[in-house]
Amino acid sequence: MEAGMGRDAAEITTKVLVTTDLMGVSTHGVRNLHNYLKRIATKGLDPHARPEIVSEGPGWAIVDGHNGMAMPSAYLAMQTAIDKAGQVGIAYAGARNSCHFGAAGFYALMAAEEGMIGLSMSNDIPSMTAPGARSHITGTNPLAVAIPAGEEKPILLDVAMSTVAGSKIYQALARGKGIPDNWIVDGEGIPTTDTSVYPHSASLLPMAGHKGYGLALMIETLSALVSGANCLTEVGSWLFDKTERPTGHGHAFIAINVGVIAPMDVYRRRADDMIRSIRRAPKAKGSERIYLPGEMEWDKRVDYEANGIPLTEDIIKSLTEIAETYGLDLGEVNSELANR
Amino acid sequence: MEAGMGRDAAEITTKVLVTTDLMGVSTHGVRNLHNYLKRIATKGLDPHARPEIVSEGPGWAIVDGHNGMAMPSAYLAMQTAIDKAGQVGIAYAGARNSCHFGAAGFYALMAAEEGMIGLSMSNDIPSMTAPGARSHITGTNPLAVAIPAGEEKPILLDVAMSTVAGSKIYQALARGKGIPDNWIVDGEGIPTTDTSVYPHSASLLPMAGHKGYGLALMIETLSALVSGANCLTEVGSWLFDKTERPTGHGHAFIAINVGVIAPMDVYRRRADDMIRSIRRAPKAKGSERIYLPGEMEWDKRVDYEANGIPLTEDIIKSLTEIAETYGLDLGEVNSELANR
Repeated sequence: MEAGMGRDAAEITTKVLVTTDLMGVSTHGVRNLHNYLKRIATKGLDPHARPEIVSEGPGWAIVDGHNGMAMPSAYLAMQTAIDKAGQVGIAYAGARNSCHFGAAGFYALMAAEEGMIGLSMSNDIPSMTAPGARSHITGTNPLAVAIPAGEEKPILLDVAMSTVAGSKIYQALARGKGIPDNWIVDGEGIPTTDTSVYPHSASLLPMAGHKGYGLALMIETLSALVSGANCLTEVGSWLFDKTERPTGHGHAFIAINVGVIAPMDVYRRRADDMIRSIRRAPKAKGSERIYLPGEMEWDKRVDYEANGIPLTEDIIKSLTEIAETYGLDLGEVNSELANR
Repeated sequence: MEAGMGRDAAEITTKVLVTTDLMGVSTHGVRNLHNYLKRIATKGLDPHARPEIVSEGPGWAIVDGHNGMAMPSAYLAMQTAIDKAGQVGIAYAGARNSCHFGAAGFYALMAAEEGMIGLSMSNDIPSMTAPGARSHITGTNPLAVAIPAGEEKPILLDVAMSTVAGSKIYQALARGKGIPDNWIVDGEGIPTTDTSVYPHSASLLPMAGHKGYGLALMIETLSALVSGANCLTEVGSWLFDKTERPTGHGHAFIAINVGVIAPMDVYRRRADDMIRSIRRAPKAKGSERIYLPGEMEWDKRVDYEANGIPLTEDIIKSLTEIAETYGLDLGEVNSELANR
């Protein structure tokens, strides 16, 4: 049995998910494969859809995902932005009729690997409140930024606009731990440390209050209003809604071609200097190291490339079930994962 | 006596400062004029400098401010980004050899007034720490985003990457009030609620921890490394350093020309829908209104345009002294301010 995706789309999706696990971001890796497959099986994701550039100009493009898997659409959009930035210096690409695209950081890094600064963002079903509001206003709307350097690894920031991800609240609930009062609001819109109200009558709080709220609206605008994607409550939940119904997520990507704007050797040297000066700066009492954004993930990648990616029991169980359903040999899958 | 700036540069600077006061952001308005004039008098700002586009391509430009007042440089850079986005859809402009450019939001709004999404950012002398660090790592690095709508006013976000501005800590100190433990760290890099250590042996904390730190590095990169401006500790303080020495600030501006990418009438209608749906959303207990980013400032602008801009005693005193020094009639200045 096959899920039905074409080889190119399946390979891109695999690369996105496995690279994400390789950098230790296991919340957004192969753990989610079974959910994507469920959507494919019920036609909420069309396995035969091919993302298409439906309009474009010298410094911009719009990709229609035609309700297929999000990764090939996001990949095409960022690759198109990179290609166009190669010509004019900077480019924007939006994507619509997409879905959950995995880790935003993957696409931002595509730009950094070409010596460009990459921005990657997506909207999502509203789950985050706003100052003065009672309930959901925007999605947690992730934003990733990748900054190429010289000898140093690219700086990689990949963050949601909420104080924390919803999964942190489930974790605290499962462990019987309290949470700070800036993570969620209760059903009346009042900050609470009571995890039991989440998620049925609670909303996530934006990071840094009005700042995270405002940035979430920037991401919503670039991802949905400019691209023509679903906006705010029009967006479906890729996890909890009927899996027959497309979610209509939108994404936005920006690539900035440093080498055409600045002397690249000078830029790379100064980026290395910036990174090293931060790493060398005096440490806080009790701190042994100052990490650059993404540095923990690069460290994990070095480790996992040498020693394999550790998978939790629930992920192995999920992959085993998928392998059985689709007649795959998990032994091979496992060793492939471990040796990438 | 004249300060020596050309008429064009003086008019742009006036427009930036007065518009900022008009929107109620008095921390970044005419209050600072005396500090800029002090720099001009001591040659740390060259009044005769004319900002110059030193390199450019289809979607990008670099402006050299030649150590003159920052506002004309920032204005030229954003105007150039707008012009180029008019051709290719999106454009980046960096500025170097600049100084304190006032409120970032002014330049972002220039784009929104042309139906474009505008981003405006700047680096500054390091005053903010990073996770694991003891002292200053980056500036508070402001970021502004302006989003045009239809009948509604543009969304306008204008925020620093620190939890709060340093001025908030002085205010708390002056009023004998405590501060939360996420505003500053002490000399050992440990979060503190003790305002007396600021600023001599304290650093501001980034908003939302590693998120604000990461975004500050994005802003530093776009403002300084791509433009060729001073970076991190190379940047001087426009307020506290010797006023004879140029500060070498860098800025970055991005304009995204919505109308060439999307059907503008559809975009404007959907942006209005987004704004109105948020405004109509259920309010938190005790909340009467959900504000869009910038909405408080637009409300003030309507009020101040009708009734004049209220000026505090210290600002009137400062303007009076300037008027005496340069032989201006403050009566006229006052009525001009009130009636703009």
